[in-house]
Amino acid sequence: MKTVFSPGQLAHDPRHEISDGELKPAVEIPARAEIVRARILEAGMGEILAPEEFGMAPLARVHDAGYLDFLDSFWSRWTEAGRGGEAFPFVWPVRGLRADPVPDHIDGLLGRYSFDAGTPMGEETFAAARASANSALTGARLVAGGDRAAFALCRPPGHHAAADYYGGYCFLNNAGIAAQWLRDAGAARVAIFDVDYHHGNGTQAIFYDRSDVLFLSVHADPREEYPYFLGHAEETGIGAGEGFNVNYPLAPGADWAIWSAALDAGLERIARFAPDVLIVSLGLDPYEKDPISRFRLTQDDFTRLGARLARAGLPTLFVLEGGYAVDALGVNCVNTLTGFEAG
Amino acid sequence: MKTVFSPGQLAHDPRHEISDGELKPAVEIPARAEIVRARILEAGMGEILAPEEFGMAPLARVHDAGYLDFLDSFWSRWTEAGRGGEAFPFVWPVRGLRADPVPDHIDGLLGRYSFDAGTPMGEETFAAARASANSALTGARLVAGGDRAAFALCRPPGHHAAADYYGGYCFLNNAGIAAQWLRDAGAARVAIFDVDYHHGNGTQAIFYDRSDVLFLSVHADPREEYPYFLGHAEETGIGAGEGFNVNYPLAPGADWAIWSAALDAGLERIARFAPDVLIVSLGLDPYEKDPISRFRLTQDDFTRLGARLARAGLPTLFVLEGGYAVDALGVNCVNTLTGFEAG
Ligand SMILES: [Zn+2]
Ligand SMILES: [Zn+2]
Repeated sequence: MKTVFSPGQLAHDPRHEISDGELKPAVEIPARAEIVRARILEAGMGEILAPEEFGMAPLARVHDAGYLDFLDSFWSRWTEAGRGGEAFPFVWPVRGLRADPVPDHIDGLLGRYSFDAGTPMGEETFAAARASANSALTGARLVAGGDRAAFALCRPPGHHAAADYYGGYCFLNNAGIAAQWLRDAGAARVAIFDVDYHHGNGTQAIFYDRSDVLFLSVHADPREEYPYFLGHAEETGIGAGEGFNVNYPLAPGADWAIWSAALDAGLERIARFAPDVLIVSLGLDPYEKDPISRFRLTQDDFTRLGARLARAGLPTLFVLEGGYAVDALGVNCVNTLTGFEAG
Repeated sequence: MKTVFSPGQLAHDPRHEISDGELKPAVEIPARAEIVRARILEAGMGEILAPEEFGMAPLARVHDAGYLDFLDSFWSRWTEAGRGGEAFPFVWPVRGLRADPVPDHIDGLLGRYSFDAGTPMGEETFAAARASANSALTGARLVAGGDRAAFALCRPPGHHAAADYYGGYCFLNNAGIAAQWLRDAGAARVAIFDVDYHHGNGTQAIFYDRSDVLFLSVHADPREEYPYFLGHAEETGIGAGEGFNVNYPLAPGADWAIWSAALDAGLERIARFAPDVLIVSLGLDPYEKDPISRFRLTQDDFTRLGARLARAGLPTLFVLEGGYAVDALGVNCVNTLTGFEAG
């Protein structure tokens, strides 16, 4: 299958993140994409295309206009305020506090449009996020045009970003943007299956009231793991979306036997939904050696994952999400994709 | 007037805070209380009493039970999780994310029960916050017992803490706890006038639907200043509380002429309310040399502030809130209190 990737996605190059009350080296770094790209070339998996430029319109179909304006104008506001370097928000409008009116001050804006403290934003962040979204959109166009599958090598990732907030290293919801673009291009139904270790809270939130985009996620129980505040089994959708949101939270420590049972249940639900396209939010952090995660998938399990996904028999767009065991990302990613192709 | 203070309030001794994406030296430090205490002694302002122990019951009248359990059990959970040193939350349940179910993981709990990233919590934090609340309660008992006024030298401060979240260096809402205790002790109406540079979002939230506790605040416009997400003029209360919440947001840069006009408007509103007791949330950060604030009150203006408050002719409890120009805190605080006594 073809891969879509732009070197522009590497421009977001954070130095630090804040966690456990310390400024630590960033883990969502350009090397993540580079090692995946290198392994694709090494494995001879197929062509790597540069993304087309889709402009702002497909982003605005999923994201709030004020949020996009904020991302677009952030660096000029930040530097006009005499600031520089990486920005971290530090105060948030939780319950009882008001998201609106939107503050004027840049520190207020940072909190208004985010939900965590660990996602650094700099001069090139929005450009890189846009390039990443263009890769997802280009992959969607390949699949809409008849390719059996495509791989959008998206980085920065997307599944934690909602309509109007960033966090979890995510700024634009690449999978969600691709799903909406496919709907607008004529697909009646799109399923998004999120296999990242962490719940795809942003994607769930974006489609929670809709029946045309089925969202499913296998992830660590939010009582025990980030993002903590979404991803429970009882979250099944609302209004027209009731029944079209499916969470499989698993206890940390789950191995392939446990994990793949949830995967199979999800694939059965997808079969009943009969979507025109399947989008896989491909997080590689269920890997047993991921430094921030606690599932126990092996490198061979990723090959098995690809094969099982292939059995769904659907045009499939893979969109890269998380995964922080940098040395193994290339192998685990390509194992999934070649497992799919062989499956 | 008498001052209430416990050395136990000094046990919360944070090293760092996170702001602007950096770990910086903490500004809400024990020296704040010590310099105020020293100036009170130097000025011969009156006796300094140790607080009585009121137990948990008066805290539970204002704060959520789960929140108090969290504060109480925090250090044992934190250390059982293999952590140590100061704790900072890093992810919050903003809109669309769920505050309930409450997570089990300590990092989830930290975000569930807070609203900012800049408020360090350590082993002694809850003990110090309880001692600070006991000082406020002891001050309330003095006023209820007939003293014209009392000064609760509260530190850590309280006005940013709401029923179930901490932030802005605040853990327990000392002024709110004192107000509720006075109500329970027989006062029909209590007014809280918050003169801190920053909006008292926690106090507002606690009493927003009530007509028995009038909350007023003169502060920097939240569009421009922390806490950014509460403190607008149109926030006038809800339900039975409609008309009993009064905000005077001022543009940064306000001097005594502008600031005291809002003060006078607030005092007129208080006169119409005819409370049994006035509580002054005494933030000293409207001071012109405060390092994190942008109002322009002089040291003499604090004397004027005390005199104006005295003219209300009400039993008055002063509760210390913010103020970070450490060298000047003692003078500005005692100027206010002696201005009141002479007024
Ligand atoms: Zn992840
Ligand atoms: Zn303040």
